[in-house]
Amino acid sequence: MSYTHPYQDADFVLRQIVKFDELGADAGLDEANMDLAVAVLEEAGKMGSEVLAPLNWSGDQAGISLGEQGVQEAPGFKEAYQQFAQAGWLSLSVAEDFGGQGLPNVLSTAVNEVWQSANISFALCPMLSIGAMESIGHHASHALQSAYLPKMASGEWTGTMNLTEPDAGSDLAAVKTRAVPNGDHYLVTGQKIFITWGDHQMTENIVHLVLARLPDAPAGVKGISLFIVPKFLLDADGNPAERNAAHCLSVEHKLGIHASPTCVMEFKEAVGYIIGEPNKGLSYMFTMMNHARQAVGLQGLSISERAYQQARVFAKERLQGTRRDGSRIPIIEHPDVRRMLMLMRASCEAMRALALVAAAEVDRARYAQAAEAQAMHTARVELFTPIVKGWLTELSQEMTYLNIQIHGGMGFIEETGAAQHYRDARILTIYEGTTGIQALDFIGRKTLSDQGAALALLLAEIRITAEDLRATNTLHASILDGLESALARGVVAREWLLQSAPSDANLAGSASVNFLMLFGYLCGGWLMAKQAGLAQAQLAAGEGDAYFLKNKLITARFYAEHLLPRTQGHLAAMLAGSESTMALAEDAF
Amino acid sequence: MSYTHPYQDADFVLRQIVKFDELGADAGLDEANMDLAVAVLEEAGKMGSEVLAPLNWSGDQAGISLGEQGVQEAPGFKEAYQQFAQAGWLSLSVAEDFGGQGLPNVLSTAVNEVWQSANISFALCPMLSIGAMESIGHHASHALQSAYLPKMASGEWTGTMNLTEPDAGSDLAAVKTRAVPNGDHYLVTGQKIFITWGDHQMTENIVHLVLARLPDAPAGVKGISLFIVPKFLLDADGNPAERNAAHCLSVEHKLGIHASPTCVMEFKEAVGYIIGEPNKGLSYMFTMMNHARQAVGLQGLSISERAYQQARVFAKERLQGTRRDGSRIPIIEHPDVRRMLMLMRASCEAMRALALVAAAEVDRARYAQAAEAQAMHTARVELFTPIVKGWLTELSQEMTYLNIQIHGGMGFIEETGAAQHYRDARILTIYEGTTGIQALDFIGRKTLSDQGAALALLLAEIRITAEDLRATNTLHASILDGLESALARGVVAREWLLQSAPSDANLAGSASVNFLMLFGYLCGGWLMAKQAGLAQAQLAAGEGDAYFLKNKLITARFYAEHLLPRTQGHLAAMLAGSESTMALAEDAF
Repeated sequence: MSYTHPYQDADFVLRQIVKFDELGADAGLDEANMDLAVAVLEEAGKMGSEVLAPLNWSGDQAGISLGEQGVQEAPGFKEAYQQFAQAGWLSLSVAEDFGGQGLPNVLSTAVNEVWQSANISFALCPMLSIGAMESIGHHASHALQSAYLPKMASGEWTGTMNLTEPDAGSDLAAVKTRAVPNGDHYLVTGQKIFITWGDHQMTENIVHLVLARLPDAPAGVKGISLFIVPKFLLDADGNPAERNAAHCLSVEHKLGIHASPTCVMEFKEAVGYIIGEPNKGLSYMFTMMNHARQAVGLQGLSISERAYQQARVFAKERLQGTRRDGSRIPIIEHPDVRRMLMLMRASCEAMRALALVAAAEVDRARYAQAAEAQAMHTARVELFTPIVKGWLTELSQEMTYLNIQIHGGMGFIEETGAAQHYRDARILTIYEGTTGIQALDFIGRKTLSDQGAALALLLAEIRITAEDLRATNTLHASILDGLESALARGVVAREWLLQSAPSDANLAGSASVNFLMLFGYLCGGWLMAKQAGLAQAQLAAGEGDAYFLKNKLITARFYAEHLLPRTQGHLAAMLAGSESTMALAEDAF
Repeated sequence: MSYTHPYQDADFVLRQIVKFDELGADAGLDEANMDLAVAVLEEAGKMGSEVLAPLNWSGDQAGISLGEQGVQEAPGFKEAYQQFAQAGWLSLSVAEDFGGQGLPNVLSTAVNEVWQSANISFALCPMLSIGAMESIGHHASHALQSAYLPKMASGEWTGTMNLTEPDAGSDLAAVKTRAVPNGDHYLVTGQKIFITWGDHQMTENIVHLVLARLPDAPAGVKGISLFIVPKFLLDADGNPAERNAAHCLSVEHKLGIHASPTCVMEFKEAVGYIIGEPNKGLSYMFTMMNHARQAVGLQGLSISERAYQQARVFAKERLQGTRRDGSRIPIIEHPDVRRMLMLMRASCEAMRALALVAAAEVDRARYAQAAEAQAMHTARVELFTPIVKGWLTELSQEMTYLNIQIHGGMGFIEETGAAQHYRDARILTIYEGTTGIQALDFIGRKTLSDQGAALALLLAEIRITAEDLRATNTLHASILDGLESALARGVVAREWLLQSAPSDANLAGSASVNFLMLFGYLCGGWLMAKQAGLAQAQLAAGEGDAYFLKNKLITARFYAEHLLPRTQGHLAAMLAGSESTMALAEDAF
């Protein structure tokens, strides 16, 4: 159950597809180049393999407990967290003003792949902290920023996000937690559920960000404000002192991510400080939503990669069947096992490319000089985010499933560890917005609302890649044909949607997930074909690692042959419209 | 977490598709008619809902334990088992000679759906017993049959199947357990793993069937014999007396089916009695393999049905979002939730039809008068069995996944119970032969070995249905077009396989799972279209329950629009052949 970061593939994508050196130079970040990226990823790989990965299975088995002192995390987690924080990993992409290193988002994303592969339960803690830092960094007063950000960036304190309430689910309009003004602060009262790492003993303070309503706030989502509610109030020197009335009431008994405490949090007139202006809490949350959603999408890649690594080791070691000479056959020689391994490998490579390309768009939007470029990259971030979240996490279900399948009966035994990845992965299509919510976002806010303009630009860019590759014509026909066919399906899907949606209120919702999945497979196929083209060019020029490049060509071909055809089923289901989906009376179910 | 048997759908399939009355009459079984079936299913439904279903979640949580006395089953299981046995449910399809009721296999299959939906961990125990009874009933001496079968048919004793050994997995050629002759019996020594219900306290005896090698037996699968090894040896009166040296060494810690003990069994010179002739153990195992594989396929339907029932209740109760008038919206009104529920409903109906049609072929093969008819039905059983096992269990992964997805965050919390179905379902694509093994069986032994003859007959039968429906032309175009297109893909797949396989040793293995899944969806679509045609005819004639029949038309249309198009992706992946699957060097993984 060891883990090694697939540095060569990450390097190839960063260097060739993302063009990280160019990105750093354009952004005026002198140090942000591939030399730095290589060094950072190497260090991250060590930390992941040596410190975090060994705690993944033990953390799942030990789980967490709730006692008098609050939540007790799994053994070894505190020491690992301190090592992790001291190495500076929390501050990678935090602004230098607040003690961070100000590195591009795409590099911290590449690094985050390591943490999420090594130990998804552990990695949720820094992931949530970074999200909280983003909100504070963008919207809080300078005083609040000075008081909280440096300690969070150093990892001395962690952060949490408190959104969901009982019976509210994804429906933030139903938030009932209230905040009453009281001098320079507010008194926050209410209950929040599903709070990841809501309590623990790893750090001396925890900074809760809490959505709540002011008295007489407008109803619905326009009446929600955002507050900082620290576990311990700060004394005059800014050190944690008095315990605040923010406690973990209970912890959930979950299918997976057992070492990540999921808390019911109770706030009883807890002291809170408002972030930014009243009633703008939801828009402040949206600031970090793209980041958080891409980060969860990345978890889909990470856990798939971890599952793939476990499956390939087993497939080489496990003997089943006998050759005529009496020697036993490792199951990797069985074509169907090979097919499953190739599905995992090709999916991981496609997911990695898409996750990094999407993360780089965040940087390009941030550092763009021209308004037009900024608008274009921002639209691309908006478009990619639900695809990365929705498609990668859906795919990760299949990949962790295949890992168990390759293990056969052993995969069903918990000690093997394959089941843990399957259990852990199951939350990914749910939290930070279910696949259904991602798909509605993609089809509605991201496509219908601009008449498909941003999507048309993406399709045009894919077409350029397809035409370039066809013009060079050095790739296997499957790659060229597969990309062109899938692209054509994407074009049909977009046009059909724009034409049909206005006259059928149920159409977008009925078609949304198939629409999202179609574009997920298409984007993956686009970036695999692009990588194949670059690999072929390097091979022709005698550059690069020929072994790696030839394998990339095979994997890209497999992707085109086995994964891209799935767009057919998604398109057909989509074009069926909403009639048969909606026709049954509710009582008939 | 309640459960109600969907009797109306089972009734429709048995009456209209299986033509159970005709089957009973043809078989000369006077009592085997729909009146009896209705009565039996009603009683089974009560037993399932009232006795077994309430123990499903508690059994998962309590699990089983291993102590001095062996395995202790979950609380309530012993009482439930005794109630179940006393009601005669074990003997439904056992021959009347041995105290059974001699009812058709298709009826006991319809009944088995209830047990497997209500409590899959519990239902594994009678399922294994029935398998053991089949082997004994077909191959053991009359003396052994008389000693063991009546007590097993009455449910007083249970039976187990001991095949797998450490490091052997699906590879029965590697069986090492040995049996040494010792007077009128043998002494059996060896270790077996993954033995379902290998020990418990529910009955006073357990009849283990054990695969082992005689001294000087030929190597490989041709040297395996089958033995009865009872937990307690029988005294002169045939009652359990001396404890035999067959013990449960340890129990597995599994992802799911926690209330079903999975034992490591140790036999130390345990007294055993040979079944039939030496070295024919494997062929005796194959006798029951079709039955066992179809039974596991049925578990795929059953757990999907249970998951569907849970999902639809939640979708009606759970409120998310607000209408303009301020009232809250149950999530069943959201089109994407509706889409997921329809996927579950349509899949369950298709699976049920296929499972019952396949089970009826077993009866038709058994009771056929003419040799030609017998051969045809036998071939059909052989063809359907891997499809039922492979396709239904694969589909059940998605269905139990969708149940969690509809529950959102609540689905990830164990107390909700949705996670249990997901965990329990995960074993179904593995035990009794993985999907890969089913697919190899389907593409190799069932298709290539007869040059596709049996498959051609099935395709011809599907074509007749498609032509009949087209001639009547009263169904929605999606159903007619969908079936015809999928049928055309099936024809292409078969022809391509017959043409391409001879020249490529890796082709069948590379294509097998896609081939199997294509035919699974096609068979499901065939039977859904057939049901739609019958429903339409009944509606036109003013017969039957119009509400049920109209819903069947909608569900069949949804199946054709959303599930049949998946055959496109499977065909395309298959036609890609083996090159990209096999091209990567083993070291590259």
